[in-house]
Amino acid sequence: MADTLDRLQKDHIQRLLTAYRELMRQHELDAIALYSGHALPHYGDDQYPEFQASGHFMHWTALLEAQHSWLVITPDAKPRLVLHAPTDFWHLTPSLPDEPWVGEFDIELVNEATAPALKGRVALIGNVEALQDGPVAVPHGEANPPALTHALDELRLYKSPYEIACLREANRLAMAGHEAAHAGFAGAGAELDIQLAYLGASRQRESHVPYDNIVGLNEHAGVLHYQHYDLNAPTGRYSLLVDAGRRFRGYCSDITRTHAGPDAPALFGRLIKAMHELKDSLVADVAPGVDYASLQLSMHRRLADILVSHDLYRGTADDCVASGATRAFCPHGVGHSLGIQVHDVAGLTAPDGTPAPAPEDHPALRLTRTLAPGMVVTIEPGLYFIPMLLEPLRHTDVPVNWPLVEQLQPCGGIRIEDNVAVTASGFDNLTPKAAI
Amino acid sequence: MADTLDRLQKDHIQRLLTAYRELMRQHELDAIALYSGHALPHYGDDQYPEFQASGHFMHWTALLEAQHSWLVITPDAKPRLVLHAPTDFWHLTPSLPDEPWVGEFDIELVNEATAPALKGRVALIGNVEALQDGPVAVPHGEANPPALTHALDELRLYKSPYEIACLREANRLAMAGHEAAHAGFAGAGAELDIQLAYLGASRQRESHVPYDNIVGLNEHAGVLHYQHYDLNAPTGRYSLLVDAGRRFRGYCSDITRTHAGPDAPALFGRLIKAMHELKDSLVADVAPGVDYASLQLSMHRRLADILVSHDLYRGTADDCVASGATRAFCPHGVGHSLGIQVHDVAGLTAPDGTPAPAPEDHPALRLTRTLAPGMVVTIEPGLYFIPMLLEPLRHTDVPVNWPLVEQLQPCGGIRIEDNVAVTASGFDNLTPKAAI
Repeated sequence: MADTLDRLQKDHIQRLLTAYRELMRQHELDAIALYSGHALPHYGDDQYPEFQASGHFMHWTALLEAQHSWLVITPDAKPRLVLHAPTDFWHLTPSLPDEPWVGEFDIELVNEATAPALKGRVALIGNVEALQDGPVAVPHGEANPPALTHALDELRLYKSPYEIACLREANRLAMAGHEAAHAGFAGAGAELDIQLAYLGASRQRESHVPYDNIVGLNEHAGVLHYQHYDLNAPTGRYSLLVDAGRRFRGYCSDITRTHAGPDAPALFGRLIKAMHELKDSLVADVAPGVDYASLQLSMHRRLADILVSHDLYRGTADDCVASGATRAFCPHGVGHSLGIQVHDVAGLTAPDGTPAPAPEDHPALRLTRTLAPGMVVTIEPGLYFIPMLLEPLRHTDVPVNWPLVEQLQPCGGIRIEDNVAVTASGFDNLTPKAAI
Repeated sequence: MADTLDRLQKDHIQRLLTAYRELMRQHELDAIALYSGHALPHYGDDQYPEFQASGHFMHWTALLEAQHSWLVITPDAKPRLVLHAPTDFWHLTPSLPDEPWVGEFDIELVNEATAPALKGRVALIGNVEALQDGPVAVPHGEANPPALTHALDELRLYKSPYEIACLREANRLAMAGHEAAHAGFAGAGAELDIQLAYLGASRQRESHVPYDNIVGLNEHAGVLHYQHYDLNAPTGRYSLLVDAGRRFRGYCSDITRTHAGPDAPALFGRLIKAMHELKDSLVADVAPGVDYASLQLSMHRRLADILVSHDLYRGTADDCVASGATRAFCPHGVGHSLGIQVHDVAGLTAPDGTPAPAPEDHPALRLTRTLAPGMVVTIEPGLYFIPMLLEPLRHTDVPVNWPLVEQLQPCGGIRIEDNVAVTASGFDNLTPKAAI
């Protein structure tokens, strides 16, 4: 695989170079300087939170931890990387990866943070505002001009074969973590133990995950962005929801699996199976020309079928959608764009840069584009038993089967999520098929 | 223990209230408003790095994760906590701990971030600058007035019995992690596996540790703030250095242990034993009235004895110190103040607030105070084989036994660190005695 990745990376860098040079021509620029950014310590402290380099800098280098560093692209010279690599006995000096881009760049390792010398009309991309009041002068140039920034975001929306290979590898590595989390649940571990099992098997530290892993037991499976890891295992074992990814060369996977525990009603296991099938059917709809927002509507229609066929809703599927009941059972979007950021850029803008917000009835949808080859999206239908959302329906004539909902409430909810690339003719599911 | 802690916490809050009210009188203030702070997302992303509330806010509440929240102290009313606790289905709503301070405060849980109404002369303490350009108005008042800020830092330097009990418990919990890390090394784990074993046994997630754990195998033990966790175990097993703590109610432990592996020369094991004895002898010197900087000099004198007696330095101990050789073998400080921050506040100021910087020959020393009851410090002598520091000595007549140093270089180095409270008559070592 390494050979193929090397070859694909060369093509990726060439593609970026061509695109950046075309943009420099269009925007009459002599250089685009990408700033990695830098971390600030916790307030009043000398300790730092975790850092991640800015997306456009990562697009070329994947150097997640590079701080105080610059990449300068010009119309004629090699890309020039000024990498802050202090040599001291306090820290391990950053070193360059064994990847082909390193040979294609002019690289300067600098001991002190410094801004590169730049000539002519320059666009500065990244958090250069943070340099103000610091020891390093802000280079001359326009910071984050909106039209260029939009064009660079747009470039990131369409993944090269190299980027898709990285996303596939990020999926493969994450799935090993999901298998370990499943085993940790079987072993009756607490959320913290399941999280650590996930990290161990996916080979990563918490501060490098693409987003905070969600590891929710029982009712916590129904807290959409559940942000804790309980230290003690609950006595009842109803369910486990794990929403967790991994980075590979900066690219993020974002996979969710839900498991029924020994104390869950049998219906919960059947619903998990139905949600896997719903996920598969939505994945099969991914193709060029498809309006992503239409998948959101499909998710609700098919979720209504599941609610009706499992006796959770005692009416027709059409009424179930029309009454808003499916939105009470699933308040989030069907998915989002995926790349160097887990909620990748340019999801809510039209190709020309104008805003393309989520539909009024589906405010949590993060992607409103028409799908095209090279886009990579998540498909993540959900079904939850969230009291805050369902209670208002109790005082209406919406025919929800309340005793069944109450039986399922200790299980929290279900989400099943894969990562899917749009191909020339349809889709490529990057998430490995697994027993879980 | 819970009963005692509860009682001690009540006294701690009363002590803070008395001290704050005296400061308000001195500084002619009608209120001191402590802001918890809030996190900003990674640049250009919607994901957040980990957050920790500001130190003075934590001093009262220990609410490490509280954001957009305020604690207002006035001369006559109960402390008033305005805690941002949004109730939504995305996140678990923050809840208050079962601790006595909760009963002593007026507490308002608010759905939307808001600034409290404040009257008269007010001092705002914390990162209120970060509120500028945000949706919440900065309350009227002076932000972080230097004299008051210094006085509050000074208050934190002297720990109440409650704080010392918390620091002791933080030590107890961390030591369980150190034992698991030791077992992970015996099991030939990679740095990542040893780190995860540490987190599992000390019951914490990486984003809650008081500082990035240092888990260094072999040469990495000689990188003082080694910041990675290798995914693969090295073939040779020479050494493991673990510098890792835990928070308990916000208070940090900071413990270091070093272990010899099966491939280390026997001398390395003997040096570890000698460094434990050196640590114990420095701990025994902790007492009221002792100039902490004098412990730095004691460390170097006794390190010289170790270098001479183990044939690493072929001269007298006095010459070893005078030549600067001990500083090449140990370039860091003997320790620092410890509290809500791992390098706690007020270490490099005199009691009157004037700067008290580290001695010229020992620039890395983080505490220059005369010890007094209630202070809590680390004692952490080190001995390293760092090529960058030792190489310059090669070209001098300093009588280092180079063949022995070269034999030890694969081991990286040794650091042994305990946490010690200054008592009325001497010291109280908060780090549990353990087999490791």
